[in-house]
Amino acid sequence: MAKRSGVTAPKGFLAAGSHCGVKSSGAKDLAIILSDRPAITYGVLTKNLVKAAPVVVSREHLRSPYTRAIVINSGNANVLAQNDYENAKRMVMATAECLKIPERQILVASTGKISAPLPIEKIERGICNLTPYLRPGGGSDAAEAIMTTDLVKKEAAVKLAIGSKQVVVGGCAKGSGMIHPNMATMLAFIMTDATVTRPVLKDIVKRSNEASFSRVTVDGDTSTNDMYVLMANGASGAAPIEKPSGKNYSKLLDKVTEVCVTLAKEMARDGEGATKFITVEVTGAKTETAAIKVAMSVAKSSLVKTAMFGEDPNWGRIMAAVGYAGVPVELSAISLKMCGVTLYKKGEPANALSEAKVAAKMKKKDITISIDLGAGKATTQVWTCDMSYDYVRINAEYST
Amino acid sequence: MAKRSGVTAPKGFLAAGSHCGVKSSGAKDLAIILSDRPAITYGVLTKNLVKAAPVVVSREHLRSPYTRAIVINSGNANVLAQNDYENAKRMVMATAECLKIPERQILVASTGKISAPLPIEKIERGICNLTPYLRPGGGSDAAEAIMTTDLVKKEAAVKLAIGSKQVVVGGCAKGSGMIHPNMATMLAFIMTDATVTRPVLKDIVKRSNEASFSRVTVDGDTSTNDMYVLMANGASGAAPIEKPSGKNYSKLLDKVTEVCVTLAKEMARDGEGATKFITVEVTGAKTETAAIKVAMSVAKSSLVKTAMFGEDPNWGRIMAAVGYAGVPVELSAISLKMCGVTLYKKGEPANALSEAKVAAKMKKKDITISIDLGAGKATTQVWTCDMSYDYVRINAEYST
Repeated sequence: MAKRSGVTAPKGFLAAGSHCGVKSSGAKDLAIILSDRPAITYGVLTKNLVKAAPVVVSREHLRSPYTRAIVINSGNANVLAQNDYENAKRMVMATAECLKIPERQILVASTGKISAPLPIEKIERGICNLTPYLRPGGGSDAAEAIMTTDLVKKEAAVKLAIGSKQVVVGGCAKGSGMIHPNMATMLAFIMTDATVTRPVLKDIVKRSNEASFSRVTVDGDTSTNDMYVLMANGASGAAPIEKPSGKNYSKLLDKVTEVCVTLAKEMARDGEGATKFITVEVTGAKTETAAIKVAMSVAKSSLVKTAMFGEDPNWGRIMAAVGYAGVPVELSAISLKMCGVTLYKKGEPANALSEAKVAAKMKKKDITISIDLGAGKATTQVWTCDMSYDYVRINAEYST
Repeated sequence: MAKRSGVTAPKGFLAAGSHCGVKSSGAKDLAIILSDRPAITYGVLTKNLVKAAPVVVSREHLRSPYTRAIVINSGNANVLAQNDYENAKRMVMATAECLKIPERQILVASTGKISAPLPIEKIERGICNLTPYLRPGGGSDAAEAIMTTDLVKKEAAVKLAIGSKQVVVGGCAKGSGMIHPNMATMLAFIMTDATVTRPVLKDIVKRSNEASFSRVTVDGDTSTNDMYVLMANGASGAAPIEKPSGKNYSKLLDKVTEVCVTLAKEMARDGEGATKFITVEVTGAKTETAAIKVAMSVAKSSLVKTAMFGEDPNWGRIMAAVGYAGVPVELSAISLKMCGVTLYKKGEPANALSEAKVAAKMKKKDITISIDLGAGKATTQVWTCDMSYDYVRINAEYST
């Protein structure tokens, strides 16, 4: 692990986070991440056709060859609200003015309540007040400022060697609710001081996203504001990675993926109302796509998730979710384990003793569901959480 | 409405229901429905690839030209359990023996906990004890005996004239949890004394199912035990309906559909933990398929459903669910109403006053969400319920 945390772990990145007045609680609600030099940047954005204004603006600005900064507010998603597009633009303009950088080198993101008008004046003032505090140790403040119903801030950083140079990858994310691929509903900002070309970066973003954020579900709802952005500023001085192959490319891809997977798992662990962290493993699938479909069907099932909350080894619900996943399966070939204990093996249900063993193991926070489809060699792993009273409470009381 | 209730409203049908020992509560858990003469029968069964043993047995028996009886137990789904197929067969055999009818003229259904062993001896004894009680007024007992977490029994009956004869359609259903198409997760048994051919009956089942049970969702989980069976025994003496067209055909289709829609809505209204009955209407879609996709995306969203429970007019979540429905939509063409009040109109969000109006109307049990996609002329309507603390409690504590 790198010494400094999150987005400011790699060289040449500064960050800051503070309260500007969007959240009535007084918690931090505004963050800026800045690269001290132009950075190659790529991002994947929500696939929801109802896209938040900041997503629309960032998509335009991602066409620029370089990016310098990202400005993010939490507490308000700036979507389906009066003047949402104009307000997203104003966030960019304020940042451009205070930092003296071109508007198109700035991305903007928002997360929080849908359809409430954005208090843009407060945010504009907040941006101007915040920029003097941008610093190399500010990653954690930024990570905190992008939280909504998250209970813990989510940061990760790792290092690798490229030639004789040390390269660092660090990032932060927020999740909690409305979490479902493609991409979990979430914001993730990953920074690296590696030197890469844009095609390489694009490739790394797509692959790391597939292996991490697209493997998380909390409630099956895809947000209007999803965003995963990777910036590479070359400040490490390491040799450039110019094509998506070779040892250095693989190393960087692995490390970016590692950071993304760490953050993705944190999102599931901190899902709204979560009392359990659930890993659904599928093996023996014909294709990876089939494995993912089956794993996601189980991970999304409200009946499976409420059973996990109840610490009830109700594996029949898991099998039912396998059955409606939309993948041809042969009941007599399937085996199912929970927490390492076999509950169903190729057509034969296990006895009450095994269920009792699993029930005892389910008292722990981490639960693993392992499904072997017995049909091929493809595997996958997805992450989710249980569905608790608190999930309902948080989402029923969200506006009040 | 017909005088007698449910499945015994049409002529020539008898039913009975009692407790045989599957449910530890002592509630009714065994039902038999009998036609006093051979009936043309068609059924649609779960699309889940993990099919309960009674579904497998009934599928075989539906190939028989006539059906006489259906035997149903509640409290145990007889799926993924030891000897499940053999036990489904034994339920049929016991019924055949006691009623002196061929096994292949008997259908079998089970609903309740997945993967628990069926107490088959109790059921066999129960069947023999129950058959003497089969009577023309027994519909309600049967309707009660098929309930699981249902709070109310679900019955409906209507009459129509075919020529100078009165024809009756009556049925019962159970729903509550694991309710999602194609077909809601449910059992529905509809009887009629009309005279029809098998192709006509098949057509009526498919169309009525599409318009009713396939338009209900409670939790997005498709059960292993879904079954909707329609029996027509000709006891009305009405002229036979021999092809799927013409006035008499249309009349019968309408009335069967009316019974199915009544039962389907009852299922949503009585969904597990439901405090609200929610109708999602979509208009202005390019195709009916698109309308259904959008309506179901909204009806399935946990975030929408928890907001309804919280009586929170969080229409942004509705728009988000429209956006990820997988149907091309144009934000600037969409209008959205809740409880008749406009909240979003072609790109323009309504003001806080409208939200307050809706919030007041949401205190009622029935909530309507109306989405106009502004893209065409196709419409649909689907039904669901809110997601409450009780949904979580019921499903977390199900086994205990």
